[in-house]
Amino acid sequence: MMKPYQHKVQYYETDQMSIVHHSNYIRWFEEARCDILEQLGIGYAKLEALGIMIPVLSVSCEYKTMTRFGDTVIIIGKVLYYDGVRLKMSYEVKDANTGEIRCTGESSHCFLHAGGPISLKRKYSQIDTLFRDCLCEGV
Amino acid sequence: MMKPYQHKVQYYETDQMSIVHHSNYIRWFEEARCDILEQLGIGYAKLEALGIMIPVLSVSCEYKTMTRFGDTVIIIGKVLYYDGVRLKMSYEVKDANTGEIRCTGESSHCFLHAGGPISLKRKYSQIDTLFRDCLCEGV
Amino acid sequence: MMKPYQHKVQYYETDQMSIVHHSNYIRWFEEARCDILEQLGIGYAKLEALGIMIPVLSVSCEYKTMTRFGDTVIIIGKVLYYDGVRLKMSYEVKDANTGEIRCTGESSHCFLHAGGPISLKRKYSQIDTLFRDCLCEGV
Amino acid sequence: MMKPYQHKVQYYETDQMSIVHHSNYIRWFEEARCDILEQLGIGYAKLEALGIMIPVLSVSCEYKTMTRFGDTVIIIGKVLYYDGVRLKMSYEVKDANTGEIRCTGESSHCFLHAGGPISLKRKYSQIDTLFRDCLCEGV
Repeated sequence: MMKPYQHKVQYYETDQMSIVHHSNYIRWFEEARCDILEQLGIGYAKLEALGIMIPVLSVSCEYKTMTRFGDTVIIIGKVLYYDGVRLKMSYEVKDANTGEIRCTGESSHCFLHAGGPISLKRKYSQIDTLFRDCLCEGV
Repeated sequence: MMKPYQHKVQYYETDQMSIVHHSNYIRWFEEARCDILEQLGIGYAKLEALGIMIPVLSVSCEYKTMTRFGDTVIIIGKVLYYDGVRLKMSYEVKDANTGEIRCTGESSHCFLHAGGPISLKRKYSQIDTLFRDCLCEGV
Repeated sequence: MMKPYQHKVQYYETDQMSIVHHSNYIRWFEEARCDILEQLGIGYAKLEALGIMIPVLSVSCEYKTMTRFGDTVIIIGKVLYYDGVRLKMSYEVKDANTGEIRCTGESSHCFLHAGGPISLKRKYSQIDTLFRDCLCEGV
Repeated sequence: MMKPYQHKVQYYETDQMSIVHHSNYIRWFEEARCDILEQLGIGYAKLEALGIMIPVLSVSCEYKTMTRFGDTVIIIGKVLYYDGVRLKMSYEVKDANTGEIRCTGESSHCFLHAGGPISLKRKYSQIDTLFRDCLCEGV
Protein backbone atom coordinates (compact mmCIF):
# COMPACT_ATOMS: atom_id res chain seq x y z
CA MET A 1 0.00 0.00 0.00
CA MET A 2 1.15 3.51 -0.85
CA LYS A 3 1.57 6.03 1.92
CA PRO A 4 -0.29 9.21 0.97
CA TYR A 5 1.94 12.20 0.23
CA GLN A 6 1.69 15.23 2.50
CA HIS A 7 2.59 18.83 1.70
CA LYS A 8 2.55 21.70 4.16
CA VAL A 9 1.59 24.96 2.46
CA GLN A 10 4.36 27.56 2.57
CA TYR A 11 4.04 31.33 2.75
CA TYR A 12 5.88 31.79 -0.55
CA GLU A 13 3.22 29.64 -2.24
CA THR A 14 0.49 32.20 -1.55
CA ASP A 15 -0.48 35.09 -3.79
CA GLN A 16 -2.27 38.35 -3.09
CA MET A 17 -5.67 36.63 -3.08
CA SER A 18 -4.34 35.10 0.19
CA ILE A 19 -4.60 31.64 -1.31
CA VAL A 20 -2.12 29.25 -2.87
CA HIS A 21 -1.25 30.41 -6.39
CA HIS A 22 -2.81 28.01 -8.87
CA SER A 23 0.52 27.14 -10.53
CA ASN A 24 1.78 25.52 -7.34
CA TYR A 25 -0.69 22.65 -7.54
CA ILE A 26 1.09 21.54 -10.72
CA ARG A 27 4.28 21.42 -8.65
CA TRP A 28 2.54 19.45 -5.92
CA PHE A 29 1.44 16.90 -8.51
CA GLU A 30 5.13 16.49 -9.34
CA GLU A 31 5.98 16.07 -5.66
CA ALA A 32 3.38 13.31 -5.30
CA ARG A 33 4.51 11.65 -8.55
CA CYS A 34 8.15 11.57 -7.41
CA ASP A 35 7.05 10.20 -4.05
CA ILE A 36 5.09 7.38 -5.70
CA LEU A 37 8.06 6.45 -7.88
CA GLU A 38 10.23 6.38 -4.78
CA GLN A 39 7.76 4.21 -2.89
CA LEU A 40 7.70 1.87 -5.88
CA GLY A 41 11.48 1.56 -5.59
CA ILE A 42 12.14 3.45 -8.83
CA GLY A 43 12.97 6.88 -7.47
CA TYR A 44 14.85 9.46 -9.46
CA ALA A 45 18.31 8.22 -8.47
CA LYS A 46 17.54 4.75 -9.82
CA LEU A 47 15.88 6.03 -13.00
CA GLU A 48 18.80 8.37 -13.61
CA ALA A 49 21.28 5.53 -13.15
CA LEU A 50 19.36 3.67 -15.86
CA GLY A 51 19.26 6.81 -18.01
CA ILE A 52 15.46 6.96 -17.99
CA MET A 53 13.55 10.26 -17.92
CA ILE A 54 9.79 10.69 -17.62
CA PRO A 55 8.93 14.07 -19.18
CA VAL A 56 5.52 15.67 -18.81
CA LEU A 57 3.48 15.69 -22.03
CA SER A 58 0.40 17.36 -20.62
CA VAL A 59 -1.07 18.48 -17.36
CA SER A 60 -4.49 19.67 -16.22
CA CYS A 61 -6.03 20.84 -12.99
CA GLU A 62 -9.55 21.62 -11.80
CA TYR A 63 -9.61 23.94 -8.81
CA LYS A 64 -12.45 23.18 -6.39
CA THR A 65 -11.75 25.00 -3.14
CA MET A 66 -8.95 27.21 -1.90
CA THR A 67 -5.84 26.24 0.04
CA ARG A 68 -4.24 28.68 2.46
CA PHE A 69 -0.92 29.20 4.18
CA GLY A 70 -0.44 26.82 7.06
CA ASP A 71 -2.82 24.20 5.69
CA THR A 72 -1.52 20.70 5.19
CA VAL A 73 -2.74 18.84 2.13
CA ILE A 74 -2.65 15.22 1.11
CA ILE A 75 -1.99 14.51 -2.55
CA ILE A 76 -3.22 11.14 -3.76
CA GLY A 77 -1.68 10.15 -7.07
CA LYS A 78 -2.91 7.17 -9.09
CA VAL A 79 -1.91 5.46 -12.29
CA LEU A 80 -4.87 6.03 -14.62
CA TYR A 81 -3.39 4.51 -17.74
CA TYR A 82 -0.21 2.68 -18.65
CA ASP A 83 0.70 0.72 -21.75
CA GLY A 84 4.48 0.48 -21.57
CA VAL A 85 4.99 3.60 -23.69
CA ARG A 86 2.61 6.10 -22.16
CA LEU A 87 1.70 6.82 -18.55
CA LYS A 88 -1.26 8.83 -17.33
CA MET A 89 -1.65 9.77 -13.71
CA SER A 90 -4.46 11.38 -11.73
CA TYR A 91 -4.14 13.50 -8.60
CA GLU A 92 -6.49 14.46 -5.84
CA VAL A 93 -5.45 17.19 -3.42
CA LYS A 94 -7.35 17.10 -0.13
CA ASP A 95 -7.12 19.02 3.09
CA ALA A 96 -5.33 16.78 5.57
CA ASN A 97 -7.71 17.64 8.40
CA THR A 98 -11.13 17.92 6.81
CA GLY A 99 -10.65 15.76 3.71
CA GLU A 100 -12.23 18.51 1.63
CA ILE A 101 -11.09 18.27 -1.97
CA ARG A 102 -8.94 21.23 -3.06
CA CYS A 103 -8.37 20.18 -6.65
CA THR A 104 -8.09 17.26 -9.00
CA GLY A 105 -5.80 16.87 -11.95
CA GLU A 106 -4.01 14.66 -14.42
CA SER A 107 -0.66 14.41 -16.11
CA SER A 108 0.51 12.31 -19.05
CA HIS A 109 4.05 11.17 -19.70
CA CYS A 110 6.28 9.15 -21.98
CA PHE A 111 9.61 7.49 -21.20
CA LEU A 112 12.88 8.71 -22.67
CA HIS A 113 16.22 6.94 -22.89
CA ALA A 114 19.27 8.40 -24.61
CA GLY A 115 17.14 11.27 -25.88
CA GLY A 116 14.51 9.12 -27.57
CA PRO A 117 11.20 7.57 -26.51
CA ILE A 118 11.33 3.98 -25.35
CA SER A 119 8.95 1.20 -24.44
CA LEU A 120 9.47 0.18 -20.83
CA LYS A 121 7.67 -3.03 -21.70
CA ARG A 122 10.43 -4.08 -24.06
CA LYS A 123 13.47 -2.60 -22.38
CA TYR A 124 12.75 -2.53 -18.65
CA SER A 125 10.27 -5.27 -17.90
CA GLN A 126 10.75 -4.99 -14.12
CA ILE A 127 9.76 -1.33 -14.11
CA ASP A 128 7.02 -2.11 -16.59
CA THR A 129 5.59 -4.65 -14.14
CA LEU A 130 5.62 -2.12 -11.31
CA PHE A 131 3.53 0.34 -13.33
CA ARG A 132 1.15 -2.44 -14.47
CA ASP A 133 0.66 -3.51 -10.86
CA CYS A 134 -0.19 0.08 -9.92
CA LEU A 135 -2.77 0.16 -12.66
CA CYS A 136 -4.43 -3.10 -11.56
CA GLU A 137 -4.31 -2.47 -7.85
CA GLY A 138 -5.62 1.03 -8.19
CA VAL A 139 -2.55 2.81 -6.82
CA MET B 1 -5.51 44.61 -32.58
CA MET B 2 -3.77 43.00 -29.61
CA LYS B 3 0.00 43.20 -29.37
CA PRO B 4 1.37 39.69 -28.78
CA TYR B 5 2.89 39.15 -25.34
CA GLN B 6 6.61 38.36 -25.10
CA HIS B 7 8.44 36.56 -22.32
CA LYS B 8 12.18 36.08 -22.11
CA VAL B 9 13.08 32.78 -20.45
CA GLN B 10 14.98 33.22 -17.19
CA TYR B 11 17.62 30.97 -15.69
CA TYR B 12 15.52 30.34 -12.59
CA GLU B 13 12.75 28.95 -14.81
CA THR B 14 14.90 26.02 -15.93
CA ASP B 15 15.15 22.65 -14.22
CA GLN B 16 17.79 19.96 -14.29
CA MET B 17 16.56 18.64 -17.64
CA SER B 18 18.01 21.98 -18.92
CA ILE B 19 14.56 23.05 -20.09
CA VAL B 20 11.88 25.30 -18.67
CA HIS B 21 10.07 23.53 -15.85
CA HIS B 22 6.57 22.62 -17.02
CA SER B 23 4.86 24.54 -14.20
CA ASN B 24 6.18 27.85 -15.53
CA TYR B 25 4.03 27.73 -18.65
CA ILE B 26 0.99 28.00 -16.38
CA ARG B 27 2.54 31.21 -15.03
CA TRP B 28 3.20 32.48 -18.55
CA PHE B 29 -0.48 31.93 -19.39
CA GLU B 30 -1.28 34.23 -16.48
CA GLU B 31 1.22 36.82 -17.73
CA ALA B 32 -0.44 36.81 -21.16
CA ARG B 33 -3.93 36.93 -19.61
CA CYS B 34 -3.04 39.96 -17.49
CA ASP B 35 -1.49 41.62 -20.53
CA ILE B 36 -4.66 41.10 -22.57
CA LEU B 37 -6.82 42.58 -19.81
CA GLU B 38 -4.50 45.56 -19.67
CA GLN B 39 -4.61 46.03 -23.42
CA LEU B 40 -8.41 45.87 -23.20
CA GLY B 41 -8.30 48.71 -20.67
CA ILE B 42 -9.42 46.51 -17.77
CA GLY B 43 -6.09 45.78 -16.15
CA TYR B 44 -5.78 44.61 -12.57
CA ALA B 45 -5.78 48.11 -11.05
CA LYS B 46 -9.13 48.90 -12.68
CA LEU B 47 -10.69 45.53 -11.82
CA GLU B 48 -9.49 45.86 -8.24
CA ALA B 49 -10.98 49.36 -7.99
CA LEU B 50 -14.30 47.81 -9.05
CA GLY B 51 -13.79 44.93 -6.62
CA ILE B 52 -13.79 42.31 -9.36
CA MET B 53 -11.59 39.22 -9.23
CA ILE B 54 -11.18 36.61 -11.95
CA PRO B 55 -10.08 33.38 -10.25
CA VAL B 56 -8.83 30.36 -12.17
CA LEU B 57 -11.26 27.44 -12.19
CA SER B 58 -9.19 25.12 -14.34
CA VAL B 59 -6.05 25.07 -16.39
CA SER B 60 -4.52 22.67 -18.89
CA CYS B 61 -1.37 22.54 -20.96
CA GLU B 62 -0.07 20.31 -23.76
CA TYR B 63 3.70 20.41 -24.06
CA LYS B 64 4.92 20.12 -27.67
CA THR B 65 8.56 21.14 -27.75
CA MET B 66 11.05 22.37 -25.19
CA THR B 67 11.93 25.93 -24.24
CA ARG B 68 15.41 26.79 -23.01
CA PHE B 69 17.11 29.55 -21.06
CA GLY B 70 17.70 32.62 -23.21
CA ASP B 71 14.83 31.83 -25.59
CA THR B 72 12.15 34.43 -26.08
CA VAL B 73 8.61 33.18 -26.49
CA ILE B 74 5.43 34.81 -27.70
CA ILE B 75 2.26 33.86 -25.86
CA ILE B 76 -0.93 34.37 -27.83
CA GLY B 77 -4.01 34.35 -25.63
CA LYS B 78 -7.53 34.22 -27.04
CA VAL B 79 -11.02 34.32 -25.63
CA LEU B 80 -12.45 30.90 -26.49
CA TYR B 81 -15.76 31.24 -24.70
CA TYR B 82 -17.57 33.95 -22.79
CA ASP B 83 -21.16 34.17 -21.61
CA GLY B 84 -21.07 36.92 -19.00
CA VAL B 85 -20.54 34.45 -16.15
CA ARG B 86 -17.81 32.20 -17.42
CA LEU B 87 -14.67 32.94 -19.41
CA LYS B 88 -12.52 30.42 -21.21
CA MET B 89 -9.20 31.38 -22.72
CA SER B 90 -6.73 29.55 -24.96
CA TYR B 91 -2.99 30.07 -25.14
CA GLU B 92 -0.34 29.29 -27.70
CA VAL B 93 3.31 29.61 -26.71
CA LYS B 94 5.63 30.00 -29.70
CA ASP B 95 9.33 30.63 -30.10
CA ALA B 96 9.71 34.30 -30.98
CA ASN B 97 12.32 33.58 -33.64
CA THR B 98 11.24 30.38 -35.31
CA GLY B 99 7.51 30.42 -34.57
CA GLU B 100 7.77 26.79 -33.46
CA ILE B 101 4.96 25.95 -31.06
CA ARG B 102 6.18 25.18 -27.56
CA CYS B 103 2.84 24.42 -25.95
CA THR B 104 -0.87 25.13 -26.08
CA GLY B 105 -3.26 25.45 -23.19
CA GLU B 106 -6.51 26.68 -21.79
CA SER B 107 -7.84 28.24 -18.63
CA SER B 108 -11.39 28.81 -17.42
CA HIS B 109 -12.55 31.50 -15.03
CA CYS B 110 -15.52 33.02 -13.29
CA PHE B 111 -15.98 36.56 -11.98
CA LEU B 112 -16.15 37.34 -8.28
CA HIS B 113 -17.41 40.46 -6.56
CA ALA B 114 -17.64 40.85 -2.80
CA GLY B 115 -16.71 37.18 -2.41
CA GLY B 116 -19.48 35.82 -4.61
CA PRO B 117 -19.84 34.99 -8.30
CA ILE B 118 -21.37 37.68 -10.48
CA SER B 119 -22.63 38.10 -14.02
CA LEU B 120 -20.59 40.78 -15.77
CA LYS B 121 -23.44 40.97 -18.27
CA ARG B 122 -25.82 42.27 -15.63
CA LYS B 123 -23.51 44.28 -13.42
CA TYR B 124 -20.70 45.54 -15.64
CA SER B 125 -22.05 45.81 -19.16
CA GLN B 126 -19.05 47.78 -20.42
CA ILE B 127 -16.59 45.07 -19.40
CA ASP B 128 -19.06 42.48 -20.67
CA THR B 129 -18.98 44.15 -24.10
CA LEU B 130 -15.17 44.11 -24.16
CA PHE B 131 -15.09 40.34 -23.61
CA ARG B 132 -17.86 39.78 -26.18
CA ASP B 133 -15.91 41.80 -28.73
CA CYS B 134 -12.83 39.68 -28.07
CA LEU B 135 -14.88 36.59 -28.68
CA CYS B 136 -16.29 37.85 -32.00
CA GLU B 137 -13.09 39.35 -33.34
CA GLY B 138 -11.04 36.33 -32.46
CA VAL B 139 -8.74 38.04 -29.97
CA MET C 1 13.98 22.06 22.68
CA MET C 2 13.21 22.89 19.07
CA LYS C 3 12.76 20.08 16.58
CA PRO C 4 15.00 20.75 13.56
CA TYR C 5 13.12 21.57 10.36
CA GLN C 6 13.44 19.18 7.41
CA HIS C 7 12.93 19.95 3.73
CA LYS C 8 13.02 17.40 0.93
CA VAL C 9 14.42 18.89 -2.27
CA GLN C 10 11.91 18.95 -5.10
CA TYR C 11 12.55 18.63 -8.82
CA TYR C 12 11.06 22.05 -9.52
CA GLU C 13 13.66 23.56 -7.19
CA THR C 14 16.55 22.54 -9.45
CA ASP C 15 17.97 24.60 -12.29
CA GLN C 16 19.98 23.63 -15.34
CA MET C 17 23.19 23.38 -13.34
CA SER C 18 21.43 20.29 -11.85
CA ILE C 19 21.52 21.88 -8.42
CA VAL C 20 18.96 23.74 -6.31
CA HIS C 21 18.54 27.29 -7.63
CA HIS C 22 20.13 29.69 -5.16
CA SER C 23 16.89 31.67 -4.65
CA ASN C 24 15.20 28.66 -3.08
CA TYR C 25 17.40 28.72 0.02
CA ILE C 26 15.85 32.09 0.85
CA ARG C 27 12.47 30.31 0.74
CA TRP C 28 13.77 27.51 2.95
CA PHE C 29 14.87 30.08 5.51
CA GLU C 30 11.24 31.25 5.55
CA GLU C 31 10.02 27.67 5.98
CA ALA C 32 12.30 27.19 8.98
CA ARG C 33 11.34 30.58 10.44
CA CYS C 34 7.62 29.76 10.22
CA ASP C 35 8.27 26.36 11.77
CA ILE C 36 10.11 27.92 14.72
CA LEU C 37 7.27 30.39 15.30
CA GLU C 38 4.84 27.50 15.25
CA GLN C 39 6.91 25.47 17.69
CA LEU C 40 7.02 28.54 19.95
CA GLY C 41 3.21 28.59 19.89
CA ILE C 42 3.03 31.81 17.87
CA GLY C 43 2.43 30.41 14.41
CA TYR C 44 0.99 32.49 11.61
CA ALA C 45 -2.66 31.86 12.56
CA LYS C 46 -2.09 33.24 16.03
CA LEU C 47 -0.05 36.23 14.85
CA GLU C 48 -2.66 36.99 12.22
CA ALA C 49 -5.42 36.86 14.83
CA LEU C 50 -3.44 39.46 16.80
CA GLY C 51 -2.86 41.48 13.64
CA ILE C 52 0.92 41.12 13.85
CA MET C 53 3.09 40.78 10.77
CA ILE C 54 6.85 40.11 10.69
CA PRO C 55 8.16 41.49 7.38
CA VAL C 56 11.65 40.75 6.10
CA LEU C 57 13.99 43.77 6.20
CA SER C 58 17.05 42.02 4.87
CA VAL C 59 18.32 38.61 3.96
CA SER C 60 21.71 37.14 3.14
CA CYS C 61 23.03 33.72 2.18
CA GLU C 62 26.50 32.22 1.77
CA TYR C 63 26.48 29.16 -0.45
CA LYS C 64 29.02 26.52 0.62
CA THR C 65 28.16 23.28 -1.18
CA MET C 66 25.47 22.20 -3.62
CA THR C 67 22.13 20.60 -2.90
CA ARG C 68 20.55 18.24 -5.41
CA PHE C 69 17.13 16.82 -6.20
CA GLY C 70 16.17 14.06 -3.79
CA ASP C 71 18.43 15.31 -1.00
CA THR C 72 16.88 16.06 2.36
CA VAL C 73 18.21 19.04 4.24
CA ILE C 74 17.87 20.19 7.82
CA ILE C 75 17.51 23.92 8.38
CA ILE C 76 18.51 25.13 11.81
CA GLY C 77 17.21 28.59 12.57
CA LYS C 78 18.31 30.57 15.58
CA VAL C 79 17.47 33.92 17.12
CA LEU C 80 20.68 35.96 16.78
CA TYR C 81 19.38 39.25 18.09
CA TYR C 82 16.12 40.52 19.56
CA ASP C 83 15.34 43.75 21.38
CA GLY C 84 11.54 43.92 21.24
CA VAL C 85 11.52 45.96 18.05
CA ARG C 86 13.99 44.14 15.82
CA LEU C 87 14.61 40.44 15.27
CA LYS C 88 17.61 38.89 13.59
CA MET C 89 17.76 35.21 12.77
CA SER C 90 20.50 32.94 11.49
CA TYR C 91 20.09 29.79 9.42
CA GLU C 92 22.26 26.80 8.74
CA VAL C 93 21.25 24.39 5.99
CA LYS C 94 22.82 20.94 6.34
CA ASP C 95 22.48 17.69 4.50
CA ALA C 96 20.25 15.46 6.62
CA ASN C 97 22.43 12.39 6.06
CA THR C 98 25.99 13.66 6.05
CA GLY C 99 25.59 16.84 8.08
CA GLU C 100 27.62 18.70 5.44
CA ILE C 101 26.80 22.40 5.49
CA ARG C 102 25.06 23.58 2.33
CA CYS C 103 24.70 27.25 3.20
CA THR C 104 24.39 29.70 6.05
CA GLY C 105 22.36 32.87 6.14
CA GLU C 106 20.61 35.55 8.11
CA SER C 107 17.40 37.55 7.99
CA SER C 108 16.33 40.64 9.91
CA HIS C 109 12.78 41.65 10.71
CA CYS C 110 10.61 44.18 12.43
CA PHE C 111 7.07 43.77 13.80
CA LEU C 112 4.07 45.47 12.23
CA HIS C 113 0.62 46.07 13.67
CA ALA C 114 -2.13 48.00 11.91
CA GLY C 115 0.34 49.00 9.22
CA GLY C 116 2.96 50.49 11.53
CA PRO C 117 5.99 49.20 13.43
CA ILE C 118 5.44 48.16 17.03
CA SER C 119 7.45 47.17 20.03
CA LEU C 120 6.51 43.64 21.09
CA LYS C 121 8.07 44.45 24.44
CA ARG C 122 5.44 47.08 25.17
CA LYS C 123 2.41 45.63 23.45
CA TYR C 124 2.79 41.85 23.53
CA SER C 125 4.93 40.96 26.51
CA GLN C 126 4.13 37.26 26.27
CA ILE C 127 5.45 37.02 22.73
CA ASP C 128 8.32 39.27 23.72
CA THR C 129 9.28 36.79 26.44
CA LEU C 130 9.23 33.90 23.98
CA PHE C 131 11.72 35.64 21.70
CA ARG C 132 13.93 36.64 24.64
CA ASP C 133 13.98 33.06 25.86
CA CYS C 134 15.06 31.91 22.39
CA LEU C 135 17.88 34.40 22.48
CA CYS C 136 19.11 33.26 25.89
CA GLU C 137 18.73 29.56 25.36
CA GLY C 138 20.39 29.62 21.98
CA VAL C 139 17.39 28.46 19.96
CA MET D 1 26.49 52.49 -21.99
CA MET D 2 24.35 49.77 -20.47
CA LYS D 3 20.61 49.86 -21.02
CA PRO D 4 18.88 49.51 -17.64
CA TYR D 5 16.99 46.25 -17.17
CA GLN D 6 13.22 46.38 -16.72
CA HIS D 7 10.98 43.84 -15.04
CA LYS D 8 7.21 43.97 -14.92
CA VAL D 9 5.86 42.51 -11.68
CA GLN D 10 3.73 39.41 -12.21
CA TYR D 11 0.77 38.23 -10.18
CA TYR D 12 2.49 34.96 -9.29
CA GLU D 13 5.32 36.97 -7.70
CA THR D 14 3.03 38.38 -5.02
CA ASP D 15 2.32 36.81 -1.64
CA GLN D 16 -0.54 37.21 0.80
CA MET D 17 0.88 40.48 2.15
CA SER D 18 -0.13 41.76 -1.35
CA ILE D 19 3.48 42.58 -2.11
CA VAL D 20 6.21 40.85 -4.08
CA HIS D 21 7.58 37.94 -2.07
CA HIS D 22 11.07 38.82 -0.87
CA SER D 23 12.69 35.79 -2.55
CA ASN D 24 11.80 37.13 -6.00
CA TYR D 25 14.20 40.05 -5.76
CA ILE D 26 17.03 37.51 -5.67
CA ARG D 27 15.66 36.21 -8.98
CA TRP D 28 15.47 39.73 -10.41
CA PHE D 29 19.13 40.25 -9.52
CA GLU D 30 19.84 37.20 -11.68
CA GLU D 31 17.73 38.61 -14.50
CA ALA D 32 19.70 41.87 -14.42
CA ARG D 33 23.03 40.00 -14.18
CA CYS D 34 22.22 37.86 -17.24
CA ASP D 35 21.12 40.98 -19.10
CA ILE D 36 24.40 42.74 -18.35
CA LEU D 37 26.42 39.74 -19.54
CA GLU D 38 24.39 39.72 -22.72
CA GLN D 39 24.89 43.43 -23.27
CA LEU D 40 28.63 42.87 -22.76
CA GLY D 41 28.52 40.27 -25.54
CA ILE D 42 29.17 37.36 -23.18
CA GLY D 43 25.65 36.05 -22.72
CA TYR D 44 24.93 32.56 -21.50
CA ALA D 45 25.10 30.94 -24.95
CA LYS D 46 28.63 32.23 -25.47
CA LEU D 47 29.79 31.34 -21.95
CA GLU D 48 28.31 27.88 -22.30
CA ALA D 49 30.08 27.38 -25.64
CA LEU D 50 33.33 28.20 -23.82
CA GLY D 51 32.34 25.91 -20.94
CA ILE D 52 32.35 28.73 -18.40
CA MET D 53 29.88 28.89 -15.51
CA ILE D 54 29.48 31.74 -13.01
CA PRO D 55 27.95 30.23 -9.85
CA VAL D 56 26.60 32.35 -7.01
CA LEU D 57 28.76 32.25 -3.87
CA SER D 58 26.70 34.66 -1.81
CA VAL D 59 23.76 36.98 -2.11
CA SER D 60 22.25 39.69 0.08
CA CYS D 61 19.31 42.03 -0.14
CA GLU D 62 18.10 45.03 1.89
CA TYR D 63 14.38 45.67 1.44
CA LYS D 64 13.49 49.37 1.53
CA THR D 65 9.95 49.75 0.16
CA MET D 66 7.36 47.37 -1.22
CA THR D 67 6.75 46.38 -4.83
CA ARG D 68 3.26 45.45 -5.99
CA PHE D 69 1.62 43.58 -8.85
CA GLY D 70 1.53 45.67 -12.00
CA ASP D 71 4.52 47.81 -11.01
CA THR D 72 7.45 47.97 -13.36
CA VAL D 73 10.89 48.09 -11.80
CA ILE D 74 14.32 48.96 -13.14
CA ILE D 75 17.21 46.87 -11.87
CA ILE D 76 20.60 48.52 -12.11
CA GLY D 77 23.44 46.05 -11.74
CA LYS D 78 27.02 47.13 -11.35
CA VAL D 79 30.39 45.42 -11.06
CA LEU D 80 31.59 46.27 -7.55
CA TYR D 81 34.74 44.17 -7.53
CA TYR D 82 36.58 42.01 -10.01
CA ASP D 83 40.07 40.53 -9.87
CA GLY D 84 39.98 37.84 -12.55
CA VAL D 85 38.97 35.12 -10.09
CA ARG D 86 36.16 36.72 -8.10
CA LEU D 87 33.30 38.96 -9.20
CA LYS D 88 31.08 41.02 -6.94
CA MET D 89 28.03 42.80 -8.25
CA SER D 90 25.64 45.29 -6.69
CA TYR D 91 21.98 45.80 -7.57
CA GLU D 92 19.52 48.60 -7.10
CA VAL D 93 15.85 47.97 -7.75
CA LYS D 94 13.85 51.12 -8.41
CA ASP D 95 10.29 51.85 -9.40
CA ALA D 96 10.32 52.64 -13.12
CA ASN D 97 7.92 55.55 -12.71
CA THR D 98 8.85 57.22 -9.45
CA GLY D 99 12.49 56.13 -9.14
CA GLU D 100 11.81 55.15 -5.53
CA ILE D 101 14.30 52.55 -4.36
CA ARG D 102 12.69 49.19 -3.63
CA CYS D 103 15.78 47.31 -2.52
CA THR D 104 19.53 47.09 -2.88
CA GLY D 105 21.65 43.99 -2.90
CA GLU D 106 24.87 42.26 -3.80
CA SER D 107 26.03 38.93 -5.16
CA SER D 108 29.48 37.40 -5.35
CA HIS D 109 30.66 34.83 -7.87
CA CYS D 110 33.59 32.78 -9.07
CA PHE D 111 34.23 31.32 -12.52
CA LEU D 112 34.13 27.60 -13.19
CA HIS D 113 35.50 25.67 -16.15
CA ALA D 114 35.42 21.89 -16.42
CA GLY D 115 34.15 21.67 -12.86
CA GLY D 116 36.93 23.68 -11.28
CA PRO D 117 37.58 27.36 -10.51
CA ILE D 118 39.54 29.30 -13.10
CA SER D 119 41.17 32.69 -13.45
CA LEU D 120 39.57 34.56 -16.35
CA LYS D 121 42.65 36.77 -16.33
CA ARG D 122 44.87 33.88 -17.34
CA LYS D 123 42.56 31.83 -19.51
CA TYR D 124 40.10 34.26 -21.10
CA SER D 125 41.78 37.64 -21.32
CA GLN D 126 39.09 39.09 -23.59
CA ILE D 127 36.32 38.38 -21.09
CA ASP D 128 38.65 39.51 -18.32
CA THR D 129 39.05 42.87 -20.06
CA LEU D 130 35.27 43.27 -20.37
CA PHE D 131 34.80 42.85 -16.62
CA ARG D 132 37.73 45.19 -15.85
CA ASP D 133 36.23 47.83 -18.12
CA CYS D 134 32.91 47.51 -16.26
CA LEU D 135 34.72 48.03 -13.00
CA CYS D 136 36.53 51.16 -14.21
CA GLU D 137 33.64 52.74 -16.04
CA GLY D 138 31.26 52.17 -13.20
CA VAL D 139 28.91 49.85 -15.05
